[in-house]
Amino acid sequence: MTLVPARTAISELLVEDLSFPGFGGETVRAWVTRPAHASGPLPAVVEFLGYNGGRGIPGERLQWPAAGYVHVLMDTRGQGGGWGSGGDTPDPHGSGSAFPGFMTRGITDPLDYFYRRVFTDAVRLVDAVRDFDFVDATRIAVTGGSQGGGIALAVAGLVPGLRAALPDVPFLCDFRHSVDVALGAPFTEIAGYLAVHRDHVETVFRTLSYFDGVSFARRIDAPTMISIALMDEVVPPSGSIAAFNELTVADRELVVYEFNGHEGGGLLQWARQAAWLASR
Amino acid sequence: MTLVPARTAISELLVEDLSFPGFGGETVRAWVTRPAHASGPLPAVVEFLGYNGGRGIPGERLQWPAAGYVHVLMDTRGQGGGWGSGGDTPDPHGSGSAFPGFMTRGITDPLDYFYRRVFTDAVRLVDAVRDFDFVDATRIAVTGGSQGGGIALAVAGLVPGLRAALPDVPFLCDFRHSVDVALGAPFTEIAGYLAVHRDHVETVFRTLSYFDGVSFARRIDAPTMISIALMDEVVPPSGSIAAFNELTVADRELVVYEFNGHEGGGLLQWARQAAWLASR
Amino acid sequence: MTLVPARTAISELLVEDLSFPGFGGETVRAWVTRPAHASGPLPAVVEFLGYNGGRGIPGERLQWPAAGYVHVLMDTRGQGGGWGSGGDTPDPHGSGSAFPGFMTRGITDPLDYFYRRVFTDAVRLVDAVRDFDFVDATRIAVTGGSQGGGIALAVAGLVPGLRAALPDVPFLCDFRHSVDVALGAPFTEIAGYLAVHRDHVETVFRTLSYFDGVSFARRIDAPTMISIALMDEVVPPSGSIAAFNELTVADRELVVYEFNGHEGGGLLQWARQAAWLASR
Amino acid sequence: MTLVPARTAISELLVEDLSFPGFGGETVRAWVTRPAHASGPLPAVVEFLGYNGGRGIPGERLQWPAAGYVHVLMDTRGQGGGWGSGGDTPDPHGSGSAFPGFMTRGITDPLDYFYRRVFTDAVRLVDAVRDFDFVDATRIAVTGGSQGGGIALAVAGLVPGLRAALPDVPFLCDFRHSVDVALGAPFTEIAGYLAVHRDHVETVFRTLSYFDGVSFARRIDAPTMISIALMDEVVPPSGSIAAFNELTVADRELVVYEFNGHEGGGLLQWARQAAWLASR
Amino acid sequence: MTLVPARTAISELLVEDLSFPGFGGETVRAWVTRPAHASGPLPAVVEFLGYNGGRGIPGERLQWPAAGYVHVLMDTRGQGGGWGSGGDTPDPHGSGSAFPGFMTRGITDPLDYFYRRVFTDAVRLVDAVRDFDFVDATRIAVTGGSQGGGIALAVAGLVPGLRAALPDVPFLCDFRHSVDVALGAPFTEIAGYLAVHRDHVETVFRTLSYFDGVSFARRIDAPTMISIALMDEVVPPSGSIAAFNELTVADRELVVYEFNGHEGGGLLQWARQAAWLASR
Amino acid sequence: MTLVPARTAISELLVEDLSFPGFGGETVRAWVTRPAHASGPLPAVVEFLGYNGGRGIPGERLQWPAAGYVHVLMDTRGQGGGWGSGGDTPDPHGSGSAFPGFMTRGITDPLDYFYRRVFTDAVRLVDAVRDFDFVDATRIAVTGGSQGGGIALAVAGLVPGLRAALPDVPFLCDFRHSVDVALGAPFTEIAGYLAVHRDHVETVFRTLSYFDGVSFARRIDAPTMISIALMDEVVPPSGSIAAFNELTVADRELVVYEFNGHEGGGLLQWARQAAWLASR
Repeated sequence: MTLVPARTAISELLVEDLSFPGFGGETVRAWVTRPAHASGPLPAVVEFLGYNGGRGIPGERLQWPAAGYVHVLMDTRGQGGGWGSGGDTPDPHGSGSAFPGFMTRGITDPLDYFYRRVFTDAVRLVDAVRDFDFVDATRIAVTGGSQGGGIALAVAGLVPGLRAALPDVPFLCDFRHSVDVALGAPFTEIAGYLAVHRDHVETVFRTLSYFDGVSFARRIDAPTMISIALMDEVVPPSGSIAAFNELTVADRELVVYEFNGHEGGGLLQWARQAAWLASR
Repeated sequence: MTLVPARTAISELLVEDLSFPGFGGETVRAWVTRPAHASGPLPAVVEFLGYNGGRGIPGERLQWPAAGYVHVLMDTRGQGGGWGSGGDTPDPHGSGSAFPGFMTRGITDPLDYFYRRVFTDAVRLVDAVRDFDFVDATRIAVTGGSQGGGIALAVAGLVPGLRAALPDVPFLCDFRHSVDVALGAPFTEIAGYLAVHRDHVETVFRTLSYFDGVSFARRIDAPTMISIALMDEVVPPSGSIAAFNELTVADRELVVYEFNGHEGGGLLQWARQAAWLASR
Repeated sequence: MTLVPARTAISELLVEDLSFPGFGGETVRAWVTRPAHASGPLPAVVEFLGYNGGRGIPGERLQWPAAGYVHVLMDTRGQGGGWGSGGDTPDPHGSGSAFPGFMTRGITDPLDYFYRRVFTDAVRLVDAVRDFDFVDATRIAVTGGSQGGGIALAVAGLVPGLRAALPDVPFLCDFRHSVDVALGAPFTEIAGYLAVHRDHVETVFRTLSYFDGVSFARRIDAPTMISIALMDEVVPPSGSIAAFNELTVADRELVVYEFNGHEGGGLLQWARQAAWLASR
Repeated sequence: MTLVPARTAISELLVEDLSFPGFGGETVRAWVTRPAHASGPLPAVVEFLGYNGGRGIPGERLQWPAAGYVHVLMDTRGQGGGWGSGGDTPDPHGSGSAFPGFMTRGITDPLDYFYRRVFTDAVRLVDAVRDFDFVDATRIAVTGGSQGGGIALAVAGLVPGLRAALPDVPFLCDFRHSVDVALGAPFTEIAGYLAVHRDHVETVFRTLSYFDGVSFARRIDAPTMISIALMDEVVPPSGSIAAFNELTVADRELVVYEFNGHEGGGLLQWARQAAWLASR
Repeated sequence: MTLVPARTAISELLVEDLSFPGFGGETVRAWVTRPAHASGPLPAVVEFLGYNGGRGIPGERLQWPAAGYVHVLMDTRGQGGGWGSGGDTPDPHGSGSAFPGFMTRGITDPLDYFYRRVFTDAVRLVDAVRDFDFVDATRIAVTGGSQGGGIALAVAGLVPGLRAALPDVPFLCDFRHSVDVALGAPFTEIAGYLAVHRDHVETVFRTLSYFDGVSFARRIDAPTMISIALMDEVVPPSGSIAAFNELTVADRELVVYEFNGHEGGGLLQWARQAAWLASR
Repeated sequence: MTLVPARTAISELLVEDLSFPGFGGETVRAWVTRPAHASGPLPAVVEFLGYNGGRGIPGERLQWPAAGYVHVLMDTRGQGGGWGSGGDTPDPHGSGSAFPGFMTRGITDPLDYFYRRVFTDAVRLVDAVRDFDFVDATRIAVTGGSQGGGIALAVAGLVPGLRAALPDVPFLCDFRHSVDVALGAPFTEIAGYLAVHRDHVETVFRTLSYFDGVSFARRIDAPTMISIALMDEVVPPSGSIAAFNELTVADRELVVYEFNGHEGGGLLQWARQAAWLASR
């Protein structure tokens, strides 16, 4: 694991480039951005990215560090080619016949499934962040939008003792129903795969059952705030609500944006998260 | 004119809410965001927004202040209803028969045209920023993407002595040609208006000739870097190139993104701008 | 108020250009078209236009005058830029941050809302028509399609003693539900505004409650025939049905076009209206 | 041939239902609408309809009769099912394998081609109109938009001695080029047919060469005004221009709408036509 | 009736060109393809085509003959212009006002309706196939996808003693409901027609009631396997299910493809059909 | 390498399942289908598949074996999830940040690029086919449509002594230009990747230069017939023409389908290929 200063024009915050061992010990990258003038360990927010975005270049998503947190933005292996400014983490695993995208890579076996590797990377990153001397290990939150929200749910279900989970419009929930009703990618990748592999329906949903945010939600022990958007055609809100309903933690909140699509609450939701987190 | 602290969770930077008198003395709003620990006047970057976005809530666009600049983000009067987190500046002027949007409001007379008010607001803001005691008045740059780039070109042509102009994928250039070839809004608003007001073609383009970035480019005396995207269907790059070609300033640069649409260079372009500006 | 002959090739009917004082005394325009050879006062039909059309040039919509009625076609202030042959009536009122179009202009306060001005114009026009010596003041009907139908509902609810109300596929009804289910503009302008102004949901629907055709329907004392189209994706028929269900007048009829979209019954519906009106 | 009063609420104009023998003596229908108070024979305007519209119900298109002309609106055989209020004229001829629509019915042989029957109907209608005692046979004009414009060109090329030809955005011109560049139906029906009948390219364009407005234009001896729209994706303006360029008549005019699509000049163009025709 | 060798490079199977008298004795074409080395009469599969495809050139659809069956592929009269390699059978019957396509040709009277002719052709073809000396007349199955499935249902309901009916995603079922819910052509042709011919609703559905696969299903006496696709937007599966539910034959099976659109089971469904048929 | 009988209802032809060692010795699958009654070695046609289709189930594409050829249909590694009936060959190689699909997997280095593995598989398959005792090694042709055409060009350029190359609408040609002009996937995957990885333009096109059909065309020594479709928006015909123009072999033919899209000549083109190949 290495943490080295990033090349950037950002001067009022520290920006560092993290390499850590993820699934199978394979190197995964992240940006660590934090206040330049802190006197002791700070609370941290670990953020995961939306589908097929990458960590990009130094200086993205400055709200959390500007608000006094250590912010860690994990690259998603193999992704980064779809939008934004690129990614730096390969996924050195191939797959059988798959629909374009990541949703059906290795989908015939939970051991081979793409998100097994991603969720493992994410859990190992949280472990690594806990060991940073500039982080207060008792105050780590996880967050992310869309796919990042789905990863945050998984991590919060797998890692005990987090301070908070803050998933926005979380993807990867309630696969069986969401694949039926979602109008756009990436849920439709699964339908596309099954339109060809007509005999794999049972196999595919068995694999997905190991990665469903609804299941992880039951295991979460951290205060959780989930946001959803009722006009979201990418991530049907029904799946996020199903996850919310499975939460057993008492301190939970559902934020509903009635007229938004997949953009959800945008920066307004960040402001709500920041206030909510500061009060805990 | 007032400058008061904004309510925000941002703690590592100062965020203030500016009200200043724009066109006709009407109140216009802006966010001023700047380093919290500066020892003297700082260089400033004044940024204008894309079409129908608003200044939103405190904490948007933190790259420039995080890089050590005083960043001023002007609200666009009447706008803010199309994307983002909203705007706070009304445009108290009505109009005759217009196509939905802002492009054809008051278009039959240059004195009544919507952008006359916007450009005046922008020039007055730069004047106001020059008077801030925490700003080095000799080091003010203007920037913005799309409509914001068009406003930046206009301001740079109208205000002498700026340190730099940094328009990205600038809109509002070469109206006559752009209206013919643009595939999407907002240039198409003008075509839509003329499809109804079939006898106004000459009148409309006469009005627009007073607001064309190509004309303003001729008057710019500051170093200028313009970025364009060759697959941009919203702002045809031909218009931005026409503006670039009219620049008379020796220190000019055209950055071309070959495979991007209207998103242009994204954060990568900001990084280029920051390096370019720091070297001047 | 002035009524002057229009310049037109129409010779078998009289076409006149009306200017009358609308909301705030501001001048509003209309075409008055009527039989050339009438021996006494005639019944009148006042028609309002669909969204963002204008009164156009003399000679549009000749069926009513060719059937023996005085036909008055009101220009809609600020509109006329979207389709047809243009409009001649400005709306000299600005607005705060709004979604492109007219639906959200002034939407944070009923006093400032765009349709307050339009409905006032329409009521004042009916008052003016009653005073024409060539009109039989006891036989005035109001009609219009889409937005024009919504205005007709409002006028019929506000002006007592009309002979008939004939709204087709009326817009501006049952806002809360229609905004949720409409697939296309202009109802979607409201959703678009609320996607940005996420905190204004209650304020917006409170304003709209003052302008809802469902409320006006309760107050109508004139015989009323409403037409709807079941495949209408612009104006969901549920809203028009809600208005119809609130009618308290005994002489009411709902005409249903099962396989039409927003074009509704077209000229066939006019023929039905003409027969229905002639029998009353 | 019969001419009987139509059932309609129209009272200020006479509306009659015409049945006349068209191609093969088969009955074709038309509406005849004319001033109610004329003292002698009047000039006539014979109008042809756009693709797959029908003559509809009595009372459509009242501008010409309201301006003092005998207006004759021909039903297009087999059509009327696409838009408007329907048609009353069957086309009792079948066809071989065809693309949905009318463009490729009988396309392998000029003798069997759909438009052979339509053009014959149209010529016979003009002959019939000349014999009406209420028509001034020396003052007959032909007009129509889109397909109606194409038919008008054909009739004006086939019938000598017309007073004027007034085609708007005329379809059916310059088939070879138009099929290559048109983005929408109905020209694309021909491409669709040839995508299946890959060996028929030469045969198809040979048939079409007998029905091309460019060829008919050469034979026109009447003053001609053609309107086009430069943003027309249905009827590429290049074809209409090709027809215009082939006109040998000295009294010709091309009206260009720069920012319109296939709607062209709308009612404004009618006003221009009325003024132009009145001056001849 | 003639059966002559087809010109083709196919050498391992016999391909012959069949002309037989269909509706009204009019000549209809088909391809007969069969094993080259058979020692006695073989079972036969008669296949009907999807909407507006034609029988194409020799050598299409070789699976059934390669599996040991006599395969007869009927051309659909008038069709073949929409996709594939063309058709060779004209439909020498005209029609009144119709929507582009075949669905509304002759729709005002069951005697004139397009599918009366097609279904008659299909029944006569089965009669002809029974008389081939190389066919085992006790082992004839009918099949087809989409429109072909609808024809197969009709034939199986009209012709007693077939060995099997194998319709895939059958079209032409439950018209009243399907026209309401189908999102794409060709069911939408009927809605398009009724959007113009607003007074024909009752007449149209009365005609269609004579041609509804749901009615034919009740009369089928052959073992029947129907496949459907739940994401089919062309042929809503509800109609096919309605037909299945009306089957009175004990030996019936419904194959459901959950994630497919109108392509249904593709070749996999053929493999299921072949196994199912071989076992009967 | 194994060749075992496939489970299928096909009885008149032999269908076998081939496993052979491809790139890196990794197992690749293919179907071998051939006449059941041959007396000696037969000519062979090796076919490659379109983008993201798989070899499917036994019995697809029976024309070549029904015409007397040994037909070998290669599975494309990792593909098969996009359309058809699936694939059976994994691609056990991961990649860095990539756009969904296969076009940008490993694109930063020719050694890692996806098509390096695919082209190697294809060459090794031809080597294997040459060794089949039922194949006449001097009469092997390669063919395929779209991606399959691109693979056929590569194989024909890399393997000397083939009897013919028959690529249809070949993909993977003239990358630099095709990426600029293609309107749809998969060429747009490359543009999508470069819209994010804005600094990789030179690297990407350097890699692609090793896999360009234009380069392989120069090396082909076999008679070659290429078909193109002028309305193809997936594979711009300019790229295929560029490849054709680079052919140095005297016996070459370009077949042009003027009005087709990416479906090209369909079965008609197969008939032309069969005649052309039989004559050589």
